[in-house]
Amino acid sequence: MPDAATAPETVILADGEYPAEGIPATLLAQARYVVCCDGAADAYTARGGIPSAIVGDGDSIGRTTAQRFRDILHIVPDQETNDLTKAFSFCMEQGRRELTILGATGGREDHAIGNIALLADYARQADVQMVTPYGVFNAVEGAATFDSMPRQQVSIFTIVPGTRISVRGLRYTPPAEGFRSWWCGTLNEAETNTFAIETDGPALLFRTFLRKA
Amino acid sequence: MPDAATAPETVILADGEYPAEGIPATLLAQARYVVCCDGAADAYTARGGIPSAIVGDGDSIGRTTAQRFRDILHIVPDQETNDLTKAFSFCMEQGRRELTILGATGGREDHAIGNIALLADYARQADVQMVTPYGVFNAVEGAATFDSMPRQQVSIFTIVPGTRISVRGLRYTPPAEGFRSWWCGTLNEAETNTFAIETDGPALLFRTFLRKA
Repeated sequence: MPDAATAPETVILADGEYPAEGIPATLLAQARYVVCCDGAADAYTARGGIPSAIVGDGDSIGRTTAQRFRDILHIVPDQETNDLTKAFSFCMEQGRRELTILGATGGREDHAIGNIALLADYARQADVQMVTPYGVFNAVEGAATFDSMPRQQVSIFTIVPGTRISVRGLRYTPPAEGFRSWWCGTLNEAETNTFAIETDGPALLFRTFLRKA
Repeated sequence: MPDAATAPETVILADGEYPAEGIPATLLAQARYVVCCDGAADAYTARGGIPSAIVGDGDSIGRTTAQRFRDILHIVPDQETNDLTKAFSFCMEQGRRELTILGATGGREDHAIGNIALLADYARQADVQMVTPYGVFNAVEGAATFDSMPRQQVSIFTIVPGTRISVRGLRYTPPAEGFRSWWCGTLNEAETNTFAIETDGPALLFRTFLRKA
């Protein structure tokens, strides 16, 4: 669980819903280094933020922002990757391997789903989490243990079909043969203050910030 | 593409982000029959709406709303299905087979992803679309043709691994062996005023309302 009292080393600010309040806003305010994905730089600077770097295909950033920050603007025209992946690759080149992604959801649903799924790729190269207004996504591949609260809502998404998942400390046990489809591990919940998960392939874990009363 | 000038026969109002503006709000205002998923009834009645039916597990609806609408409140305690699926099943029992789902995204991301993926199941039993603030999701299984605009953004999600997809009239051609993962058909775009898609398994199609300039 991200600790709002701990300043994230590096934040990637994606161009979805702006993290204007709550835990995402706190993390953004405390970040030491903020990489804005293209048009996110407009929203960030409009609120007084000074990006550390701006990375993207240059399609969505305003002309004034692009001009003002031309020295830290990295245009990557590649059509095969989205702006979030361009920003992630930039961080890898910079040796930044402890990343918090904000603003990746809340806009176009296809963008949001793509961004969430990409987390599984990113996690193979870096220690990365995605924080949304509702909770936090982490990637899991192999064995991992997570902090939780009793009755905290937990969802699991698989990436590769037939991925087998075993859990300890969650209310519902995944079927031994793997989930019927990639989204069928949603709406589980934690029983105590910790749970363990083990997978034989990439998976994504979502924990809500607040449990349902 | 949903036509805002055509009143939907039946709307299922899910408990995500309330459709307060734009095309989703217009569709809700014009609906002849509105099934609210549990707590969505609170939001709908707070804005002056009168639900035709309320369906859910009863966990999230307020006591006052539940009491006021007790005659049309259908509590389904089943833990295996979410409120959207309960509302969908209710519509099937009522013989309502032309459905527009609103309010299914914009809240908790795991709920939104689950709701979107469920559309593929629903589409096997009904003519169903999901309209969000950003566009419309339809399910495809087999061959289908869709209206589009040149450069309209189109994303394809598969449900079953290895699903083969061919398209005509979209900018990018899916790989012959199927997508590497279920989310890898995102960010395509239409070339003209119509496109065709053919799949050998269930898939979801998302078309944005507005193309990127």
